[in-house]
Amino acid sequence: MEALKQKIREDGIVLSDQVLKVDAFLNHQIDPQLMQQIGDEFAARFAEAGISKIVTIEASGIAPAIMTGLKLGVPVIFARKHQSLTLTEHLLSASVYSFTKQVESTVAISPRHLSRDDRVLIIDDFLANGKAAQALISIIDQAGAQVAGIGIVIEKSFQSGRQELDAQGYRVESLARVKSLAGGQVSFLD
Amino acid sequence: MEALKQKIREDGIVLSDQVLKVDAFLNHQIDPQLMQQIGDEFAARFAEAGISKIVTIEASGIAPAIMTGLKLGVPVIFARKHQSLTLTEHLLSASVYSFTKQVESTVAISPRHLSRDDRVLIIDDFLANGKAAQALISIIDQAGAQVAGIGIVIEKSFQSGRQELDAQGYRVESLARVKSLAGGQVSFLD
Repeated sequence: MEALKQKIREDGIVLSDQVLKVDAFLNHQIDPQLMQQIGDEFAARFAEAGISKIVTIEASGIAPAIMTGLKLGVPVIFARKHQSLTLTEHLLSASVYSFTKQVESTVAISPRHLSRDDRVLIIDDFLANGKAAQALISIIDQAGAQVAGIGIVIEKSFQSGRQELDAQGYRVESLARVKSLAGGQVSFLD
Repeated sequence: MEALKQKIREDGIVLSDQVLKVDAFLNHQIDPQLMQQIGDEFAARFAEAGISKIVTIEASGIAPAIMTGLKLGVPVIFARKHQSLTLTEHLLSASVYSFTKQVESTVAISPRHLSRDDRVLIIDDFLANGKAAQALISIIDQAGAQVAGIGIVIEKSFQSGRQELDAQGYRVESLARVKSLAGGQVSFLD
């Protein structure tokens, strides 16, 4: 997706060979117009996939997920990292290690919002080692629902997540595939 | 806002005299169409306020904030509750006590995204005792920017937050004002 790659080139900051900072438009400050274009693009790519629900993880996945849900006309669930007083019932949960935060945490979804009939599109801001996506897949499996595809805003193709999801047979659509961050430069696949 | 009140009546769950659970469409599962209506409504109410930026707190504020930002054509910043590896610089921060989670936490915004010229609209999902709004006001003050108004999806009018913000002279627009949750029933002001 050219508009996204352009934004990454202009406003992305390479912090190291592993870490790309996109706080100017995705992870902290958000560009709503770009999010709408991203949502439209995911909706177009998964238009024929029979999606009934979108699942993401708080917080940075919410903006692209909500715009995709708006276009596809389906609800969005964001997995919670911390239990609140209003999430009282039994929860579907899985553990996830965050590469950027370097902590293990538990993500959870209420079973009230996912059923066996659901065909779920997972949306997330980044795909690196794939731990967040795998946790969401586990939760969707626990609900007996089906993972219909995975939509990623920025894929770090030099880490193992994409390869593992491909090997498991999931359809992954990444809007920007970063081949390398070496030398402080962002280079894309294709 | 009638569509919102209707949704609260239909899908809200009164957990106690103090706690209203809206996990079906706002806090966990999100209804993107309703969020768009909410964003349009905030945008209409603050159309003449010269807003240059929207500020909210992760995670439940993001969906209504992004839809408001889309309509007003301005960027959205979500304050972070936890510092990540990619937020490395000096941060503007304030402490906030969460009524629903019963924990004190720190919320932070990078000063790179707020300037003295900004007229800021604060958007949040709930207004109860006003601690989250006060923390955002403190951060915006630290940046030297101006708070142009506060947009709240659901106000618990029986708690003190609204009254305190009114007394401080802020313009607060709440789309649903809950007078009472007594007897397991949601009753609205006006």
